[in-house]
Amino acid sequence: MRQVSIVGIGQLPVQKVSAQSLCELGATAVHLAMSHAGVDRVDALFAGNMLSDELQNQKHLAALIADEAGLFGVEALQVRAATATGAAALRMAYLAVASGEAELAVAVGAEKMSQGAATPALAKALDARQEVAAGATLISKNAELMQLYMTQHGMPEDGLANFAVNAHQNALTNPNALFHKPISAQDVRESRLIVPPIRLLDCSPICDGAAAVVLAPSQSARAYTNTPVQILASSVATDRFRMADRRSPLALEAAQLSAQKAFHRANITAQDVSLYEVHDAFSIMACLLLEAAGFAAPGHGWRLAAEGEIGLNGRLPIATLGGLKARGHPIGATALYQTAEIVQQLTGQAGPNQVQNAHIGLLQSVGGAAATVLTHLFSI
Amino acid sequence: MRQVSIVGIGQLPVQKVSAQSLCELGATAVHLAMSHAGVDRVDALFAGNMLSDELQNQKHLAALIADEAGLFGVEALQVRAATATGAAALRMAYLAVASGEAELAVAVGAEKMSQGAATPALAKALDARQEVAAGATLISKNAELMQLYMTQHGMPEDGLANFAVNAHQNALTNPNALFHKPISAQDVRESRLIVPPIRLLDCSPICDGAAAVVLAPSQSARAYTNTPVQILASSVATDRFRMADRRSPLALEAAQLSAQKAFHRANITAQDVSLYEVHDAFSIMACLLLEAAGFAAPGHGWRLAAEGEIGLNGRLPIATLGGLKARGHPIGATALYQTAEIVQQLTGQAGPNQVQNAHIGLLQSVGGAAATVLTHLFSI
Repeated sequence: MRQVSIVGIGQLPVQKVSAQSLCELGATAVHLAMSHAGVDRVDALFAGNMLSDELQNQKHLAALIADEAGLFGVEALQVRAATATGAAALRMAYLAVASGEAELAVAVGAEKMSQGAATPALAKALDARQEVAAGATLISKNAELMQLYMTQHGMPEDGLANFAVNAHQNALTNPNALFHKPISAQDVRESRLIVPPIRLLDCSPICDGAAAVVLAPSQSARAYTNTPVQILASSVATDRFRMADRRSPLALEAAQLSAQKAFHRANITAQDVSLYEVHDAFSIMACLLLEAAGFAAPGHGWRLAAEGEIGLNGRLPIATLGGLKARGHPIGATALYQTAEIVQQLTGQAGPNQVQNAHIGLLQSVGGAAATVLTHLFSI
Repeated sequence: MRQVSIVGIGQLPVQKVSAQSLCELGATAVHLAMSHAGVDRVDALFAGNMLSDELQNQKHLAALIADEAGLFGVEALQVRAATATGAAALRMAYLAVASGEAELAVAVGAEKMSQGAATPALAKALDARQEVAAGATLISKNAELMQLYMTQHGMPEDGLANFAVNAHQNALTNPNALFHKPISAQDVRESRLIVPPIRLLDCSPICDGAAAVVLAPSQSARAYTNTPVQILASSVATDRFRMADRRSPLALEAAQLSAQKAFHRANITAQDVSLYEVHDAFSIMACLLLEAAGFAAPGHGWRLAAEGEIGLNGRLPIATLGGLKARGHPIGATALYQTAEIVQQLTGQAGPNQVQNAHIGLLQSVGGAAATVLTHLFSI
């Protein structure tokens, strides 16, 4: 199998409401990434989007973005894994290049959540018959996890506040972030209750955005850039679909399994990770992922945040350019933003948010209530 | 790149209304294919489905099918290319095995169109803003092509009738086909006009179904079956998205390009093809594909049907077990049925429909109004 590297990235500023259409968002991100890689042609395009069926009445988005981008004839397919969809597009581009079927592939994610009712469409990441029919949403499922965590591990209700505080702090200087506003733990504590115990500032925002990355065989990567970033590993795992069927819902077994596979493939351990772009769609999810990926013992993930270990100078910097919470979480685009941010960090292009001696970046993306988790590892 | 072979197939009878849920349909097909391959575990599952967002309120189907199939932990992702979605799942499974990331992968397609309004959801394969907003549907786009073809090439209005007659004839002995009813050219001519000049019997039916295939490296394929079928080539191409933007809408450039890529990769020509499972969602599409793939000159595709060349004993047998027209077209499952049927033909398991000396099978799948076309070539 060929080694694969990232040779170009493109990100549009995340916005509450973008003036561009979904398709224009995607094509613009593709152009930015291709221009960054210095190429005017790719062999394949893999698109990540979760909500266009409902919000844009569009079920053929990859070909539409390819056309808008002027890539006549190119292979174009759409990939999905609910809220982990952007990472699925990255994995498909990885497989296309690793297999030798493509010399250059672009993974693009685009989402325009401002155009219609995103929340009911997002709930379709759950089981319609057994979960949604019983009133569940992604927020209520995360609230259930948070409540269980508090009960099981004795965490205080504001124990997760520093995840949001850290994300907002890191977003301040990221021009692509939605929020440029610092918040305090008190702001989190006093924010509106959405589904108890989850408060508004425990949740990532609904927004519009698009990001893309260009992949090439590592062997030829330096033809496109002086600073290629290698994809050390790419893995996917699933859990029992319904939380109610899981032995231990807090264990996030799909996250554990895909992390283990990725670390094994890359022949490294969690201790080697310089920074972790975590799926902080809800703070509780970030906390559980820290435990599942091996950075904290069960019941201790929240302490990493509470004790300041997740900051840019901490033991494990996370959400280094704002995370889902403050950069924003335009679903299908999110993992491509995260990939681009890891590339920024590993190539020393993260500006005031630069993590020192960043060598290895970890990305995890969560589909639904963690029924699917994708893990990617990157190195310079 | 590793060569890849099919080592197991599974098909459920296509039905107007299945008693099984979408997820059960998918899981049953997976079990059939795995049992046919003699395996109780795969490394990855790629699911094809087009309409579950609207019809089953489900956007996380791959993980749900994996769970239903009891494949705890397995990689599971969903892939899409509008109406060519089943072939996209096949391609992803191919890339996973070819790259070395999976030793065994299953591609499954499942669609349950009986549960809600399929036609408006199908129209989302077109451009919502410039085509659907102007009244277009997949039927109207095909009607436009048929009208243009009649005008440009002087084909009589019933010139395509034999495509449907042939498909119904071939479905008679296929236990998985929806229709087991012979029709005559006169039946086609006298069937109800849907969107002129397209009549009811020029269209494939709305239905429920699921099919799956198991892929393995060709090198180890004989560990699972005595009759592995090799995937000689897998390719995807896109055209200008909107028909109105195409230089020559009848040319189906995405079909031409992906066929050329596949023939080149397999180092064969159209003349080497023993049978062709064509995307006869509408008879005009079958006609245009025969031309785009190189079996007839422009304006002459319909003559292959009219002159009986597409029958089981003809020069180029197509829709050999009923095609989309008579086996049925449960969208996301269709290309997996076609793949399974090609495997039946190449391994001498096609019963009374066996094509003599079948060595090479061609499969093409059309997304939307041919903005995306996937081509696969198989050999024994």
